[in-house]
Amino acid sequence: MSAVSRSSSRIDLRIDAACTAEILARFVRTEVLRAGRARAVVGLSGGIDSAVAATLAARALGPDQVVCLRLPHRTSAAAALTDAADVARLLGTPLETVDITPIVDGFVQVSGEVGRVRLGNAMARARMLCLFDRSAALDALVLGTSNKSELLLGYGTLHGDLASAINPLGDLYKTQVRQLAEHLGVPEAIRHKAPSADLWPGQTDEEDLGVRYDEVDRLLWLLVDARASRDAALAAGFAPDLVDGVRQRVASMQFKRVPPIVAKVSSRTLGRDFRYPRDGAP
Amino acid sequence: MSAVSRSSSRIDLRIDAACTAEILARFVRTEVLRAGRARAVVGLSGGIDSAVAATLAARALGPDQVVCLRLPHRTSAAAALTDAADVARLLGTPLETVDITPIVDGFVQVSGEVGRVRLGNAMARARMLCLFDRSAALDALVLGTSNKSELLLGYGTLHGDLASAINPLGDLYKTQVRQLAEHLGVPEAIRHKAPSADLWPGQTDEEDLGVRYDEVDRLLWLLVDARASRDAALAAGFAPDLVDGVRQRVASMQFKRVPPIVAKVSSRTLGRDFRYPRDGAP
Repeated sequence: MSAVSRSSSRIDLRIDAACTAEILARFVRTEVLRAGRARAVVGLSGGIDSAVAATLAARALGPDQVVCLRLPHRTSAAAALTDAADVARLLGTPLETVDITPIVDGFVQVSGEVGRVRLGNAMARARMLCLFDRSAALDALVLGTSNKSELLLGYGTLHGDLASAINPLGDLYKTQVRQLAEHLGVPEAIRHKAPSADLWPGQTDEEDLGVRYDEVDRLLWLLVDARASRDAALAAGFAPDLVDGVRQRVASMQFKRVPPIVAKVSSRTLGRDFRYPRDGAP
Repeated sequence: MSAVSRSSSRIDLRIDAACTAEILARFVRTEVLRAGRARAVVGLSGGIDSAVAATLAARALGPDQVVCLRLPHRTSAAAALTDAADVARLLGTPLETVDITPIVDGFVQVSGEVGRVRLGNAMARARMLCLFDRSAALDALVLGTSNKSELLLGYGTLHGDLASAINPLGDLYKTQVRQLAEHLGVPEAIRHKAPSADLWPGQTDEEDLGVRYDEVDRLLWLLVDARASRDAALAAGFAPDLVDGVRQRVASMQFKRVPPIVAKVSSRTLGRDFRYPRDGAP
């Protein structure tokens, strides 16, 4: 609990980027092979998280075995497309593009006026649909790109961008992904743009969340990794509104991090007392 | 392990339907209220599982608080639509219909020739998209309809029909869902039709799986609930091919029952040592 007595600005989220990259590449390789596959498919948004995930996968499996997929919508920024192409070109991976607009248009046609949040969720799920379809066609695993900040805050679409087979970034805060990106040589244009889920034009994560990753990452680390109490977080200098909002959000978004809850009526229930060893025999 | 010495035909999956219905209705009510909602939304396929789930929800929450959603595709059987409407009418629940054809057509337009399995998965995911969208609009929870046979065999589409917030049927084998359906007064036409995922015309589960639920449910109970070994299952009279096939399938389909695997690089990792109590404070 040493962190508790520190002031918030002294919480240090620096990582050993070289060592972390090595561990994560090994993780991707191990899990892909364990699933009996040789390939991974990753949706490249033009943002930093998917660029890092693709880079780790290319290191782990070789660039030929990583299929990068751009999944633009009519409203996507043109720069996002060229940034994504830059990543694939730098890595030497194959690049495919599937326009999700007709899928989303089909959804709007049958659902009527849905508002931008529901439309954004539909876009994220249309991307999932294409990504999982390509993974089946290519006998590949879908690589996750959600970082620990997003997962804890529930900032993502369930069965949309939160869906993947394996996620190399889920234990790194956004500010740590940035360090890894720099180490891995992700282009500056990608590293320095404002994080966005590309759900509507001009959207940024930090505006949606109402807080900067710099600050919320330190608070999340304090609450989750250092297991600090509310009082300890206040003593470290975080504003009461932020602390309460983040604690409430982490709790209320738990449903996005767990499988469906199954009613128990037998002696051995899925997700409770039937937890299958991943790679063992029955 | 008394089951091990029984012959396979004497494995008895009878349930106390009245008591089970009571438990499951209470489960639905508890979980919906715990999530701060009053409503549930359920996709009615015209099959027995979704009819049972809708009936339990109507008992739990009152029929006004359960929105039944039909999600037909151009290729869906007409009888499935009228059977689904019968369920909603008998229960007195609101019934909505959203045609997924334009969404699936949009997918085919951008993906090209995909074959019937990939198309079927896309259809299941298009239904998820509509169901989760309606749940957001109605401030409702999505009710799962996958039974224990399907979940163990991985007979379902990940982020498609396997997606839900809460699942009242996941601990009941298909043959047990049938008993519950009879007790709950689900119409005979629905109870006696061949189970189908409605992924292509004429499709039936039992043809896909290559085994009858009557038989596979008893084998699954023996292997999972009674924790019998392979030898014990053979001694009980199950065919070696069936035993090996089912054991292999239960193991290989585990990925459909768990969240994405997150690489561990910190002291507290999602899904490992950060498991949040569902309804506690942080």
